Amino acid sequence: MTTINENFLKCHRQYLFPEISRRICTHRAKNPDAKIISLGIGDAIRPLAPAIVEAMKKAVVDMSSEATFHGYGPEQGYDFLIDAIIENDFNSRGVDLDSSEIFVSDGSKCDTGNIQEIFGIDNVIAVTDPVYPVYVDTNVMAGRTGEADKNGQYNKIVYMPCTAENNFIPELPEGSVDIIYLCFPNNPTGAVVTKEILSRWVNFARNNKAVILFDAAYEAFIADSEIPHSIYEVDGAKEVAIEFRSFSKTAGFTGVRCAFTVVPKQLQAYTKGGRAVEVNSLWHRRHCTKFNGASYVSQVGAAAVYTTEGRKQCRQIIDIYMTNAALIRESLTKLGYEVYGGVNAPYIWMKTPGGLSSWDFFDHLLQKANVVGTPGSGFGPSGEGYFRLTAFARPDDVKEAMQRFATV
Amino acid sequence: MTTINENFLKCHRQYLFPEISRRICTHRAKNPDAKIISLGIGDAIRPLAPAIVEAMKKAVVDMSSEATFHGYGPEQGYDFLIDAIIENDFNSRGVDLDSSEIFVSDGSKCDTGNIQEIFGIDNVIAVTDPVYPVYVDTNVMAGRTGEADKNGQYNKIVYMPCTAENNFIPELPEGSVDIIYLCFPNNPTGAVVTKEILSRWVNFARNNKAVILFDAAYEAFIADSEIPHSIYEVDGAKEVAIEFRSFSKTAGFTGVRCAFTVVPKQLQAYTKGGRAVEVNSLWHRRHCTKFNGASYVSQVGAAAVYTTEGRKQCRQIIDIYMTNAALIRESLTKLGYEVYGGVNAPYIWMKTPGGLSSWDFFDHLLQKANVVGTPGSGFGPSGEGYFRLTAFARPDDVKEAMQRFATV
Repeated sequence: MTTINENFLKCHRQYLFPEISRRICTHRAKNPDAKIISLGIGDAIRPLAPAIVEAMKKAVVDMSSEATFHGYGPEQGYDFLIDAIIENDFNSRGVDLDSSEIFVSDGSKCDTGNIQEIFGIDNVIAVTDPVYPVYVDTNVMAGRTGEADKNGQYNKIVYMPCTAENNFIPELPEGSVDIIYLCFPNNPTGAVVTKEILSRWVNFARNNKAVILFDAAYEAFIADSEIPHSIYEVDGAKEVAIEFRSFSKTAGFTGVRCAFTVVPKQLQAYTKGGRAVEVNSLWHRRHCTKFNGASYVSQVGAAAVYTTEGRKQCRQIIDIYMTNAALIRESLTKLGYEVYGGVNAPYIWMKTPGGLSSWDFFDHLLQKANVVGTPGSGFGPSGEGYFRLTAFARPDDVKEAMQRFATV
Repeated sequence: MTTINENFLKCHRQYLFPEISRRICTHRAKNPDAKIISLGIGDAIRPLAPAIVEAMKKAVVDMSSEATFHGYGPEQGYDFLIDAIIENDFNSRGVDLDSSEIFVSDGSKCDTGNIQEIFGIDNVIAVTDPVYPVYVDTNVMAGRTGEADKNGQYNKIVYMPCTAENNFIPELPEGSVDIIYLCFPNNPTGAVVTKEILSRWVNFARNNKAVILFDAAYEAFIADSEIPHSIYEVDGAKEVAIEFRSFSKTAGFTGVRCAFTVVPKQLQAYTKGGRAVEVNSLWHRRHCTKFNGASYVSQVGAAAVYTTEGRKQCRQIIDIYMTNAALIRESLTKLGYEVYGGVNAPYIWMKTPGGLSSWDFFDHLLQKANVVGTPGSGFGPSGEGYFRLTAFARPDDVKEAMQRFATV
């Protein structure tokens, strides 16, 4: 008799975005002429930069003749991309990496979801609250948690609340934790960390032989020159941290699919008997066994992000989004809302007015202004009373949404 | 202290292809002028069909303007591809499927590797010997096996020998097994199964509440009209089987990355308490949590495989490979070798001459003829004394390789 992995039964239903869709449908049915503006989705909407499009076209043409056809590539990614990544994303910020420490993939959702496989089932994981649900759900599926409580939080996971009171920066855990998920610039709060704060986390991990899983998917949105783009800008981080990077938001690759993960050779974890094992070799084994390389066309496109033209064009796209973010911040601040994020991140995290719950404010905004955002409570109990708006929208729509905000 | 998943330490080193590379390097160093011909790699070498190239170019252009840009797609794949799959691959063979039963992905290696996650850790898995190593390694990593013995076979896995004596078709297991991996047309033996034999497996699975994981990555190479392309051509298979399909070999997508998995709604597995659970919903949850859709460009390319032109052009490419396979079969048969496969599969499985071990024959062939194949023992102990040649090569190279075979 084939048994199922019963840990899957502990997973909440995916509720947040389906429920948003349901409420929009209901609203649209009652108000068929309403022009709804969505600031709810964290997805690129600007077209790919011309330099990337040209590179990808050429890559497709490569596939049309025997001499330039590409079959299976290296599972870890092509050198032409890995070399560009190391030079531009790391060497330029004073970080040395070897090509064997970079693993190109088809997306950070996969990487942040799969990484837990190489670690033991008894590790205690720590996540922020609010949190990107993939970190939690993949550990639930693996059996690293108990059941969920009435708030939807799982037994055995250490949740680190992030609210306005701590400036959306989690406190160091008091108890023992083994694997810590951090995401900066943060989705959903838009918070960033200084090098000094990040050093505290690196030291904590070193002192506790813990591993930090650092999700830097939004690093391209950092505007403040004091904010580190990579955790490896902090001394000693290579001994304790894995970093996730993505072209999804940096270059509009949400539909193209390319990302990468950095696993330094210095990083070690332990057998139950206390023997140190190189984590890089475990991830290499996992990556080569269960993955067959990202699409050649996508990797060629990703490499074009690092050309002079590509970089300039991607920067222009990010600037458009960040101009949106600034407009949202300024408009809402003027209207008297408490607003966070949106300076070094494409997410604006606002306090709901008058103590409304996140969902009540969602309904209010939809009904009064035909504007859609994301209820903060969907990311965890500490998100209750907050609301997320994203900068991934057309500038005209953002302007109109802000005008409508003034009327609610 | 972060502990590792110690099951990874049970995995063999990936030995086969690195060792082949090492021996080729050594040979090349001693014979710098040798023109080595490889019939060793199972990778497409023909360029993509023109209809696919055109479709992919257009898809890249779609990404260049806001109106036609594609960000995140549905995790399960675009309807335009799913609809084409159902109509062409299944309805045309009398199999009905709902779109919710198809999961488009970036490759069958990922799918056949990840599928085990949704099943319990105590299931007994059965694999053929010889076997595609991904089926085994991913179960080792998950902890479903004990240690490997001196033959490299893992404790708790049921191995089903496939040799000339049983026509490379495994016997039904005598003991209790829960999850059965079958691959037909087979890699590496090139064997296929009739509907009648497949029915026996389906009945066995039904009687034992077992699940069959059916890898049909090579179905496009089937020439004999009596051989089923899908396990669902057998009555009752939807209740017990998951099927894996790939565009890798069908359409030369090894570098493009697109595949799909079929999980019928009727398929159930059980909690330890004996409660039936729909497997489709478990895989849906896994797929949506850890995967973010295959590249839009790759999916558009895959859909073009099903157009009139695409189908005709892909057929021509497969015919080239199968002409190679026929030439290998006929040449080696004339030379007195015992040869299997190569009729409904791109793999030719030959008995090594004079009782040579697989690796001894590898060395002999490399030294005497500068021809590379794959030692059968690399796929498992029952592959000892066999040797795999692939049809994925240039016709001229195949011709020359066969002439050289005549001289060894």
